[in-house]
Parts: sequence; structure tokens; C-alpha cells
Amino acid sequence: MAHYSRIHKVVIDVPEGVHDEELTFWQEATGQTLTRSRRYPEYHGATLPGDAFGLLIQRLGTGSARVHLDIHTDDLQAEIARLEALGARRLRMVNDRWAVMEDPAGLPFCVIPQEPGTLNDQNAQRWED
Amino acid sequence: MAHYSRIHKVVIDVPEGVHDEELTFWQEATGQTLTRSRRYPEYHGATLPGDAFGLLIQRLGTGSARVHLDIHTDDLQAEIARLEALGARRLRMVNDRWAVMEDPAGLPFCVIPQEPGTLNDQNAQRWED
Repeated sequence: MAHYSRIHKVVIDVPEGVHDEELTFWQEATGQTLTRSRRYPEYHGATLPGDAFGLLIQRLGTGSARVHLDIHTDDLQAEIARLEALGARRLRMVNDRWAVMEDPAGLPFCVIPQEPGTLNDQNAQRWED
Repeated sequence: MAHYSRIHKVVIDVPEGVHDEELTFWQEATGQTLTRSRRYPEYHGATLPGDAFGLLIQRLGTGSARVHLDIHTDDLQAEIARLEALGARRLRMVNDRWAVMEDPAGLPFCVIPQEPGTLNDQNAQRWED
């Protein structure tokens, strides 16, 4: 006998007070319509574009265990500006290379630059600047 | 002008005391070798199998905002037993359908059943039971 498994989804758990703002933020941040589940109406979801997805374990040093998301982009400054306009806050740069931001519920996420030419209509979301 | 972006990675941030145990757990839970980054040695990572990845927003009611992972499997009981043997704890069932578990660092994650036949060597990890 054998069976299969895989990490299939990342779930952002949001307390009531900030739920609607958070839902709007992540819809606009990803460019996906997050559809409400009929069977489990506390969930809104979508399949994300892209053909590969990564898992990282980060050694934190101090602080509490948590999970965060990385957004990759071929234009770091344009993407940071786009996300700030959606209500995210820019916290700091790391290694002079990528940005740590905070979403409307206060969850940290990173914005990571990728070489121009590596993202396209097949594996990412296009934004008109 | 235009640019692209996508959610590309999920990162598990782990305090020092539980780092090694957590790294081992997620390596074995996913069946991936999580390779240490030379440039940023606080990170270990891999690309995950599977051709689609989902984002969900969950309305929590009370509690704090957080991010969690869903593992899909074609054999719920076998997968729960496999993960328990790796050091995860089973917390409860939800809607008589999926399990909430806790990893070695205390982070919750879910194990969700998928129809037999929908997971295979192309989109998931095979486990000999």
C-alpha cells in the first residue's frame, strides 16, 4: 500500500475585525478573485498562478514560531509601491535586497526581487504601472 | 510599463530552540531535502512538488491573525499516522472531514482528504505504508 500527500494551500487566518480589509488586500495583492466557499463560508479561496512553489524554513533566533509568505517580483520598487497603495506597510529592507512588509492584519510578508525576464503571463500576475 | 508578481514561497520562521527539530519534521513531512542556503545560511529550502497551489483566507472569529499550511492526501488516516510518527500532534477533526495538527514548534496545520486517484507521482509525494 502507498499513499500520497503534498502541501497544497496556504491559509491566512483572520480575526473578525480585520477580515474584510484583509480579504480585499490579498485579493488585490494577488490579482485573484478569492471566491467564498458555499460549503464552508468562512473560507474564500483561489488557485494561484505559477508552476512551482517553495517551502523555506527560517532560523529566527528569538521570537515566536510563525508562517509568512514571500511575493516574488521583477520590479521591487513598483511592487512595494503597489502593495503600499493597497494598505500594506513597508517595515525594512533585508540584506539590501528584499523588503519586509506588513499586511492589514499585521502579518509580515516579504517582497523579493527576481531577474527581469523570469516572470511572465504563464507563471505570474501582470500589473500595469 | 508593467511588472509581474506572484506568491512564490511559504516560510516557516522558527526560534532557535526548536529549529533543528522543526527542520527535520518538515523535511520528512514533505519528503523534500531542504537545502541550506549558502548566501543566507539561516534558510533551508526546496521547491515543492505539484502544479497548483492555493491561497485561502479564513474568517477566524476570535484569536490572532496567522498563516497556516494545508497538506492534502488521498489517505487521511495513513497520513495522520505518518505525521504523528514524525512528532506532530493531532488536535481535532473539523466538520468530520479534516484534521488539525500541530508541528514540533506548536504551529497548527491541517490535513485534508482528497479523492483517491487525484494525487500521483507528478503532483504529490508517494509514501509506502
